[in-house]
Amino acid sequence: MTYCVALKLREGLVLCSDSRTNAGVDHIASFRKLQVFEKADDRIIYIQSAGNLASTQSVISLLQKAITQSDRHILNVESLFDVAEIVGKTIRQVVQRDQGQSQGIDFGCSIILSGQIRGEESRLFHIYPQGNFIEAGDDTPYFQIGESKYGKPILDRIITVDTPIDKAIQCVLISMDSTLRSNLSVGMPLDLISYKEDAFCSPEIVRLDEFHPNFLKLRSAWSEGIKDLFNSLPLYMNGEDINGKS
Amino acid sequence: MTYCVALKLREGLVLCSDSRTNAGVDHIASFRKLQVFEKADDRIIYIQSAGNLASTQSVISLLQKAITQSDRHILNVESLFDVAEIVGKTIRQVVQRDQGQSQGIDFGCSIILSGQIRGEESRLFHIYPQGNFIEAGDDTPYFQIGESKYGKPILDRIITVDTPIDKAIQCVLISMDSTLRSNLSVGMPLDLISYKEDAFCSPEIVRLDEFHPNFLKLRSAWSEGIKDLFNSLPLYMNGEDINGKS
Repeated sequence: MTYCVALKLREGLVLCSDSRTNAGVDHIASFRKLQVFEKADDRIIYIQSAGNLASTQSVISLLQKAITQSDRHILNVESLFDVAEIVGKTIRQVVQRDQGQSQGIDFGCSIILSGQIRGEESRLFHIYPQGNFIEAGDDTPYFQIGESKYGKPILDRIITVDTPIDKAIQCVLISMDSTLRSNLSVGMPLDLISYKEDAFCSPEIVRLDEFHPNFLKLRSAWSEGIKDLFNSLPLYMNGEDINGKS
Repeated sequence: MTYCVALKLREGLVLCSDSRTNAGVDHIASFRKLQVFEKADDRIIYIQSAGNLASTQSVISLLQKAITQSDRHILNVESLFDVAEIVGKTIRQVVQRDQGQSQGIDFGCSIILSGQIRGEESRLFHIYPQGNFIEAGDDTPYFQIGESKYGKPILDRIITVDTPIDKAIQCVLISMDSTLRSNLSVGMPLDLISYKEDAFCSPEIVRLDEFHPNFLKLRSAWSEGIKDLFNSLPLYMNGEDINGKS
């Protein structure tokens, strides 16, 4: 499985993806689930993917191929909405190509598309396996794909569109940590990006492994903090109370 | 959907189930997902169910019917393992009865069985839609069925077999709260039971609605506590750090 999350905040974008795949033991960590397409000073496009690995790889390859061989591609269209349409169309094309021989296999893939094209603010889309898509707004400033449920409560409690980017990075990493602890199919290392609004230049993808000292500090501070918080709560609901003796 | 959780601790059992069903708007909250079978001073049996409502209702009804009409039933067998076998067999019977006309509907149901029979300590089983089952031990002192992922991280962080029962009640309610906030298909009121080891007498099921004052206090203390904890964390992982400038 996979867990990818992306936030669109006033200050910019924060993206994080795990890197474990189910494509066989020898393929573990071999496929980056966070891809960057960049045209200097004009646009940054990020694609995070979950689902069938063959499908997501084909989609990425076809998008790359189109850049050199088509008139209209993700590096020259006007808006990120247009990019989402191209990616959606490519997903449909790949799934149609493969599903003749399906044999019960799910060829679907989900994609989170984000980035900024000059003339727009940064935008964030969730593209479904059917090729249609939705866009994040101020009310829902984040999308998740893959094993998203374990890490959703902390995002729901903390993230708003006004969350500062540094705080958001920590929240995303805690969301990842909760998922890693509860689900073995999501695994380190993590790929992390924080893009500052209007930078039009992507920072390097940061790869965090299990030995990254500050990530370890964050994990342990959160884990200890949760335990301390839990232990410090007064007993609002104890056995006597709930069994009607108070 | 549904969310049910059950813990088997040294001090006893803690069970909690939501009560929302998808069987239509007019059926919301009409089906208790936590059932009690009791034989005074001899045994307490709890059944929590998730999945197809028709199937779970049939299973419960057949178990009840067998008590008056069979020689061997859940109130006279020797161990909770025997009870689990009877419940598993009943699930298979119901699913087989209905699946001739399946029309693509999933008739499966999952059950958490717990309780105590004289001569044994309390035990906890997870019975699958196929009728087979697993038992909780000291390493895995809890089971969940239904929408279990949102509420799993807090259990993983806090619960061990030595957690005191009062603390466990609070943890289970926080797990429920996280699920309620992130998934609309799980809904109040909640049914809650805490059974003290060797009591052989079940406390009343406590029904918690959204106006229960102490549950409200717990929800808000946890929510505020998480935000305070998050905000008090030093910036271990900020944009500069992860982008390699420190």
